[in-house]
Formats: sequence, C-alpha cells, structure tokens
Amino acid sequence: MAPNEPLFADRRGSSIHSEERAADEDTALLTGQKSFSAPQNRSHFWREVGLFTWAVIATAAVIVLAVLSQHQTTSEDGKNSKPAGKRNLIFMVSDGMGPASLSMTRSFRQFQGSLPYGDVLVLDQHFIGSSRTRSTSSYVTDSAAGATAFSCGLKSYNGAISMLPDQTPCGTVLEAAKRAGYMTGLVVTTDITDATPACFASHVRLRSEEDSIAQQEVGEHPLGRVVDLMLGGGRCHFLPNTTDGSCREDDRDITKLAQESFGWNYIDSRKDFDNLKLGYNVELPLLGLFAEHDIPYEIDRRNMNDVYPSLEEMARTALNALTAATKDSEKGFFLMIEASRIDHAGHGNDPAAQVNEVLGYDRAFATVVEFLDESEVEGVLVATSDHETGGLSVARQLHPEYPHYGWYPQVLANVSHSASYLSSQLRSHIGQTVDHSNSLEDDETRKASLEKYINEELVQKGLGIQDATPEEIQRVIDIPLLSSYTFADMVSRRAQIGWSTHGHSAVDVNIYGSKGTDALHGNHENTEVGEFLRNYLELDVQSVTDELIEKSTTITTSNSGNWFGRVPSEEEIQSASRHYERLYPEAP
Amino acid sequence: MAPNEPLFADRRGSSIHSEERAADEDTALLTGQKSFSAPQNRSHFWREVGLFTWAVIATAAVIVLAVLSQHQTTSEDGKNSKPAGKRNLIFMVSDGMGPASLSMTRSFRQFQGSLPYGDVLVLDQHFIGSSRTRSTSSYVTDSAAGATAFSCGLKSYNGAISMLPDQTPCGTVLEAAKRAGYMTGLVVTTDITDATPACFASHVRLRSEEDSIAQQEVGEHPLGRVVDLMLGGGRCHFLPNTTDGSCREDDRDITKLAQESFGWNYIDSRKDFDNLKLGYNVELPLLGLFAEHDIPYEIDRRNMNDVYPSLEEMARTALNALTAATKDSEKGFFLMIEASRIDHAGHGNDPAAQVNEVLGYDRAFATVVEFLDESEVEGVLVATSDHETGGLSVARQLHPEYPHYGWYPQVLANVSHSASYLSSQLRSHIGQTVDHSNSLEDDETRKASLEKYINEELVQKGLGIQDATPEEIQRVIDIPLLSSYTFADMVSRRAQIGWSTHGHSAVDVNIYGSKGTDALHGNHENTEVGEFLRNYLELDVQSVTDELIEKSTTITTSNSGNWFGRVPSEEEIQSASRHYERLYPEAP
Repeated sequence: MAPNEPLFADRRGSSIHSEERAADEDTALLTGQKSFSAPQNRSHFWREVGLFTWAVIATAAVIVLAVLSQHQTTSEDGKNSKPAGKRNLIFMVSDGMGPASLSMTRSFRQFQGSLPYGDVLVLDQHFIGSSRTRSTSSYVTDSAAGATAFSCGLKSYNGAISMLPDQTPCGTVLEAAKRAGYMTGLVVTTDITDATPACFASHVRLRSEEDSIAQQEVGEHPLGRVVDLMLGGGRCHFLPNTTDGSCREDDRDITKLAQESFGWNYIDSRKDFDNLKLGYNVELPLLGLFAEHDIPYEIDRRNMNDVYPSLEEMARTALNALTAATKDSEKGFFLMIEASRIDHAGHGNDPAAQVNEVLGYDRAFATVVEFLDESEVEGVLVATSDHETGGLSVARQLHPEYPHYGWYPQVLANVSHSASYLSSQLRSHIGQTVDHSNSLEDDETRKASLEKYINEELVQKGLGIQDATPEEIQRVIDIPLLSSYTFADMVSRRAQIGWSTHGHSAVDVNIYGSKGTDALHGNHENTEVGEFLRNYLELDVQSVTDELIEKSTTITTSNSGNWFGRVPSEEEIQSASRHYERLYPEAP
Repeated sequence: MAPNEPLFADRRGSSIHSEERAADEDTALLTGQKSFSAPQNRSHFWREVGLFTWAVIATAAVIVLAVLSQHQTTSEDGKNSKPAGKRNLIFMVSDGMGPASLSMTRSFRQFQGSLPYGDVLVLDQHFIGSSRTRSTSSYVTDSAAGATAFSCGLKSYNGAISMLPDQTPCGTVLEAAKRAGYMTGLVVTTDITDATPACFASHVRLRSEEDSIAQQEVGEHPLGRVVDLMLGGGRCHFLPNTTDGSCREDDRDITKLAQESFGWNYIDSRKDFDNLKLGYNVELPLLGLFAEHDIPYEIDRRNMNDVYPSLEEMARTALNALTAATKDSEKGFFLMIEASRIDHAGHGNDPAAQVNEVLGYDRAFATVVEFLDESEVEGVLVATSDHETGGLSVARQLHPEYPHYGWYPQVLANVSHSASYLSSQLRSHIGQTVDHSNSLEDDETRKASLEKYINEELVQKGLGIQDATPEEIQRVIDIPLLSSYTFADMVSRRAQIGWSTHGHSAVDVNIYGSKGTDALHGNHENTEVGEFLRNYLELDVQSVTDELIEKSTTITTSNSGNWFGRVPSEEEIQSASRHYERLYPEAP
C-alpha cells in the first residue's frame, strides 16, 4: 500500500487504477476540491462500505472501551465509597485487646492444634490498620472515652458516655441510624449497661450511672427507644432493688418498663435463647439478659455445659433477626458486637482466660464475615479495640540472668478454668468450711485440708499446674480475696507471659475490616473509626446532637433530675474506671 | 435526522435529496446491492467525507480510551507489581521496635512540642501492616533469624546468619541484587557485623562469629565482594588483635584486607564522613566505621557535639552516593538501613533513650520518603522490625491499688543522657576515685562524696530526677555494674512505663511502606517481607543459593576451616543472643 493511501480506501483493491484514484480522493478529502476524472460508482460504493465499516468498528470499540473504563473506575472507587442502596453495618469491639493478645492467641492456637506457623486467625486475615486511642483527659483511655470516639466520632474524657468535655451530649451513630430508618442492635458478653454498649444508646456524664443507662437503653431516652435488639449480661441493673439479683439503687423494674412502656420482648435464660432458633424466631424489639453481670468467660462457659450463649451464637442470632426484620425495608441495620471480656482477662492478668476469649471473638468475627459473604444486601464489617488492657507482653524474664527467648503456650493449654472462677470456688469453699474450726488442732487439720483442696482441686485440676510451691499455696491461703491474681500469676510466670498493670495501656490497637473498608487502612485516630461508621451509613448525626441538646433541657428523669447525671469532678474522671475493676468476681 | 440515516451521511445537508439518497445508500451498504438512481458525485464526495470524519473521530476516541484504560490498569496493578525498568529498593529495619514504642514516642513528641493529638510521626503516615516474627527454634525470634527471614525470605533458627536449619546457606536479596547488576549498601548504628547487616552479606552458623562476618562483608565471600557501601560502627571487628580497640580473635587487619584486596575506600572519623559531602563526594566501594562498637544513642550523640554521624546523615549519604554510582546504569540499588539501637534501648529498658532513637529513625525514614518523592528513578521503601525488645508497655502499675490510667512523658523529656551512658560515667568516676580510700573515715567521706556525685551529676543532671530516694542511690552504689538498669528503672517508674524482660518478645511488629508496597498491606509472616524484596527487584535468589552451596564445599577460610563456622549446639541456639546483650556498655 502506498504510504499516502488512506486505510480502507479501496477494500477490494481489484481496480488497476485504485492507487491513482485513491490519491485523487485523498486530495479531495483534504482540500474539498472535486478532482474525480469520471464517475466510478462501483469504487465509490466499496470505498463507502470500507469507510462505514471502519467507522462502525471504531465506534463499537469506543463503546466497549468506555464501558470497560467506567467499570474500572467504579471498581477502584468502590473500595472507599458507599454502596448506592440498602446496606448493613456491623461494628465489632474487642475490648482491651492489644497487639500482643493476637500473637499470644495465634501461637496458642498453633500449639494446641499442632498447626504450621502460617495457620493464622480469621482476624489476622482481615487486618487493615491500627487506631490511636488517647482521650482528652489522659494518654491512656478508658472504655467510655474509647467508645465515645466510635459512637460520636469525637474525643472525650475518661468516663464519658457519649458526652463531651463541655458536658453536652453528642449524637451517636446508632441513634442517627435509627432515625434514618435502620434497625439497630447491641450484643455484648458483659453488662449491657457497660461503657461500650452504653455509648451507642445513652448519654451520662459518668459510666457508673448504670441505672440511668439501663432506662435510656430501653427507651426512656430523649429520642425515645433507639435500640431494637440487645443481647448480653447485666440483668441486675434492670431489676428493682427489692429483688434478689438486683444491683439498682432504686426499686424500678426496668424489665417491666421495657415490656409495658416500650414493647420489648424480654428473655433471660438459655432456654429462652434456644427458642429464638438462632434468630429465625425473633420478634423485635428483643431484650435478652442472660446473666446478672457478665456472661462467664469462654474457658468457664464451655465447662458448664454451655448454659450461657456464646458471643458467636448471640452474634448469629442478631444477624439473622435483624436481616429478617429489615427484609422488606429500604434500609438495613447497624449492629455493634463486643467481645467485652478480653478486657476483663487483661484486668485480671489471666492469659489462659484471654486466649480463649480472643478465640471466641475470632469465631464471632468469622461468623460475621460469612454472613456478609452470603448476604444479598451490601454491608461491611469494621472491628477494633478501644484500648489495650494489662500491659501484656508475650515474654517475661523470671530471673536476673539474661533470659532465653521464648514463651510456653502449653502452660495455657493445661488450664481449664479462669483464675477468677477458681478464686470464687475457693472463697465459696472457705465459706462452707470456716465454721468448723474451734481449736488449734482443728486449725491445723483445717489448714492441711485447705492446702490439699487448693492444690488438688484448684491448682492441679483447674490450672493444670503440678509443681506449685508451698509459698504459692500459702499466698493463696493468706489473701483468698486476691487469689485470682495469685492463680493468674502462677500461670503467667510458667508460660513466661508478662503484665505491667491491672489497668489499661496506651499502645495502638488493631483495626480489622471486610471489603469496603479501605478508608480505614493504615494508622488512624480512634475518632476516624467513628467517622467511618457514620459516613458508611450516610447519617446526619449533627441533627441528633441538636435534638439531644434541645430535649435534654426540657425532660427530666425520675432518678437524677437530669438526663446526664452529675457533673463529674477531676478526681472522678481520673478514677472513672476504678469502680469498674471487678477484682473479686462471683462464681457464675 | 431520519432514524435510519447513518451518522455523518451528509455533513453539509444542503441537498434537498439528501434524505432520499441516504436511505438508498444505507440499503446499498447493508445489502451490497447498488441502488443509486444516477451518478451524484457531489453527494458521494460529502458522504465519504462524513464517513471518513466519523471513522477518524471514532478511531481517535479508541486511542484515547485505550491509553486511559491502559493507564488505569497500570496504576491499579502498579500497587502490587514491579516497575518496568530501572528501580531502587530501600529496606529499613527498626531493630526491636514493637507497637508500644510508637505510641510512647508519638505521645512523647506531642508532649515535647505541645502538639495536638493528630500530629503524628512520619512512620505513622506510612503504616501499612504487621509482621509475625516467630523463628524455627522459638516463638520468640532473635535478630539473626529475624533478618534471615528478610534476607533469604526463609524461616530459620535463632542465631542463624542466612543459614537454614539444615546448616546450608541461603542466598540473600543483596547478593542476588549485586549479581543482577544493582549497587548495594548497608547502613547501621551498631556494629556492621551485627546480625541484621550480617544476614544480607554473609553466612555463618552462629551470629557470634563476627570475625568471619567482617571478612565476608568486605569480599572474602564465596561470591566475592557483594557490598558497595557500608556505614556504621563495629570497627573493632576489623582491626587486628595487636591493636588497641580490636575485638578480633586473630591478628588480621580487615581494613587493610578490604583496601588492598577488594579496593575499598576506608574511613573511620566524623571528619572523613564530613568530607563525603553527604554522598556527593564518594568513591565506591566505601567502608565507613565510625565507632569501635555502637554509634552512641541519639540522646547521647546530640550531647556530644555530634562527633558521630546520625542515622539520618548516613542514610542521606548512602542514598546520594548510590544514586550517583548508578546514574548511568540500567539498574538501580538495594540499600538496607537499620536503626539498630532501638533494640539496645529495649534491652536496657531505657524509655528516654528509646523515644529519641525512634525519633531519629523517623527522621531517617522521612529522608528516604523525600528521596523517593524527588527521585527520577522508580523505587520503593519497605520498613519493619525484626521483633520487639523489652516487653514494653505504655502503662505501669506501681502500687497494689488499682491504677489511674495514664503515663507521664514529661519524665522522659527531663532526661538528657541514656542510662548506659550515665552508668559508664559512674564506673569511670569510681575507677578514678577508688584508690583514695584507706581508712573507715575515708570510706565515710568517700561514700558521702560518691552519693553527692551520683545524685547531683547523674540523677539530677543526667536523669532530670529531683526526688531520688536514699534507697535508689544506695542501689546504684551497691552494684555499679547494674546501675544502668537502676537508672533506667528510676525513669521508667516515674514515667509509668512497664517492661517485662531484658530480652525479646513475640508481639507482631509494624510494617511501613511507600507507594508501591500494597502487597505488604495487612498481616504477614516476616518471610513474606523477604519475598517482597526479591520480587520487587525480580531477582533469581535460587541461583545464588546454588552457587553458595557449591562453592562453600570447595573454599575454606583462614580462621575456621569452613565458611559457615561450627555447627551450633541446641544450647547455643537457645542462648544465641545471650552473649549479645551489652549489659555493661562502655562510655562512648
């Protein structure tokens, strides 16, 4: 083909004059001057066929490429942007779980299952970032300020339940979701009035005001009832102080208030829970309180014939119930699920209880991932911790000599009960036997009997420790109230697990996410997690805040004269969490 | 326009018959049958112009869209894939830096600069993932097994310098890069023969064989010289044992060997370093050893009129020198930069030394980021730690009472020297004064004088502590050799910083990366970091391994009869790092 000849100028190329004519036509096309020497309809025809074919093919290519390009752009943006329509948001909180908990639990699991090093937790496979946790009142946050960062997307002081440092309430993602037509749920393994769940559905100036939190959660709230489903522990805050098993200061029956004034279905037993058929037989609103305080640790629960539901079972039930309830709605649901007691195991410096709590959390997390994979409604899962608890280190130097590098998960694998459970067993045993000591001889007999009980029943059977020293046994006898710490320390030392405090620490905590949470990749302030939640559901939280402020001045509650309780002192903020450390838990 | 009329069929549209003709032509084009009623050259011409214009526009659109689409695909893939041509790879190691170090350093910096909570480290802004660190011999790795995971991309035992559990050598990313035509460099703040740098350019069965490591690093290596630039400390391993400042077992002068047999330029002072003009006046290969052992801690270095180069200065020098040396090459460079002494501050449980080391690392990291931003050559930065050291917790309970949540960075801000520096000052002071005590009276005078010296010069001026207790001063006097630990503990307690060991711990460590390191987002085994490095440079590491195995059987070294040293015992592997803890560092 001649260099100047247009492509497709003569598709057939059969004419001996084609080159000459093509040159002519080329000139004509460029100049607009007619220079054809003679009419040649046949070649005109085929030239036009050629041109048309070219144009059609090119146009088709444009369309294909445009669609492809659009598709690429969409899938790129899709990582960070919101879906167009109905959506579900599940937010999981691993209270008190710092980075070291993961390494400890992963190696424990690998040891227990004889798994290779690459066999990791479901959480590990969804690790996307980390969260900075300091509050406005301290470099080390408590759960209240931590949860306020998630619920309101704002920093506040330790002890604040969705209240700001200026003592005004801040609207929460759950409240705004409810206002926008979403269904809402809270699932926990501690009291449903504890700081984390409380921050999503109530406003008080100090986390200790749990009586008010219970009332607000069921619907005695400036915005009315904002929660559709609550599963967990903490029944004592809902029962009148005239009842066994109450921890309220007044004689109000909040279970009755919930049912009669706000239409809740109320259940309080494993049997009731089983009747829910994992959520396929639920009528909302549903309030399920399965323990007076905490649901027992996973390591204890599994040794009690599962008379309490697990976090995984409650999570699955909530997902199914909220899915059914939003089946015909244009909006989906917001569900907060907290593995509350990873934190308690940290406070107790109990590594065996903790690895089992984290494994339970991992199973609940996997359940949510599976739910999202199978759901027809778009949705995302975001999971993080509010802070680290215990100053956990997966290594511990026991002697002045330079330490070997290692720790011993087999020690944790030998443990069959939490230290706090064994401590309560001990105190119960002492309570039953204490009256029988009348003489020195009886004292000696009794002491020997107690030593035997502690060593055989608690240390050998419960902790799986066969080499307790007389000093360790003596320490248990000397301060039975602190035996929980002694038991936990006996295990920690043998496993070479370190702790620096019974309180919280400042280390950044991990963020986990499903597909669609790219905006949380990397290192973030904890408030950015809260911002992600509200943004994902496209909520107007400010209008909720405005309404809360407006209504809070005109409505009073029966027990405090003010929705938000007393203005806390500096000392109360500093020690906001102190009352909350359950040093001496009761046997479940 | 009629629905059936082809686009552009008559651009001018001036003919009153155009619609009719167009319909005819349309038929003709679709059927191939000629149906023109008469020659109409003018309309033929304009129809062809129209068709041609359409085809050209559509073709142009195809080209534009194809380019756009290609660009999108490239930038999407680019996150995980390799650039097409010349490239640089910088790998940074923060030895011993766990997650808690970041939170501690960030808050310290915010406190010191009165910065808001959102003002974070450069590292924080490049956080992308975390790394699991266990070795084949323990759940808690040492730096040797940790660095072998990076250099070879394979798990090995504690103490292994790029050797596998079966006692065969594994080719490293640096060796393969050199073979492929890249320039290579190692920059550290400890001995250049320490485990991390050693793993990139040498192979021995135990990290303690540093004499052999020095020889291999300069070129007495199965593959010949593989490193082009080394900057750091550890001169003592290069000097014959007939020389002051040597720590070799033999009388070989490795600085001479390097210069005479392998062409190295050798420098050993700040003056020499300054002559490098930050890399603009460098001839490779360059060996710069600026301290007998470690380069002093950042907190001490800055109080010594900077007689030692900082990590940032060495990093900048290496980047500039390697850039100049590869200016006309088709290949770029591989550079490993280690903030070695974050680990030492962890071993010493010294939080003030550590925050300043981490800040120095952050500056070096920022320098590399800036280099990559400005470089015309494509490149990436990957940064991680080999393990955590010290079991650091940013919280510490000092009393049995339940702790307040908080820690006190102001305590660290008051410190002006590392604990190990002050300890060496003390021992030096005692050495100078010890001979003067002849009587009990002298003893009393001397004791009072020593107490005064310790409290005023070391504790008040050095640690910034004004409330030392008599017991603390006595502990310093009782065991001067351990005074470094005592000083560090005095600071840690007052700052409420916790430590669980003087060794390493198992917590996952952070991964940081520049653009182009998406493959390392999330949680990874440390070997996957090593795999990323070799993949980024598209290296054939296996052929290096094969060559090493082949040559190792035929070449012997002068001091061990075998390149790789002795086969270590189980006990030696267990305590591989023990010799390495510099309990009693010399004053710099």
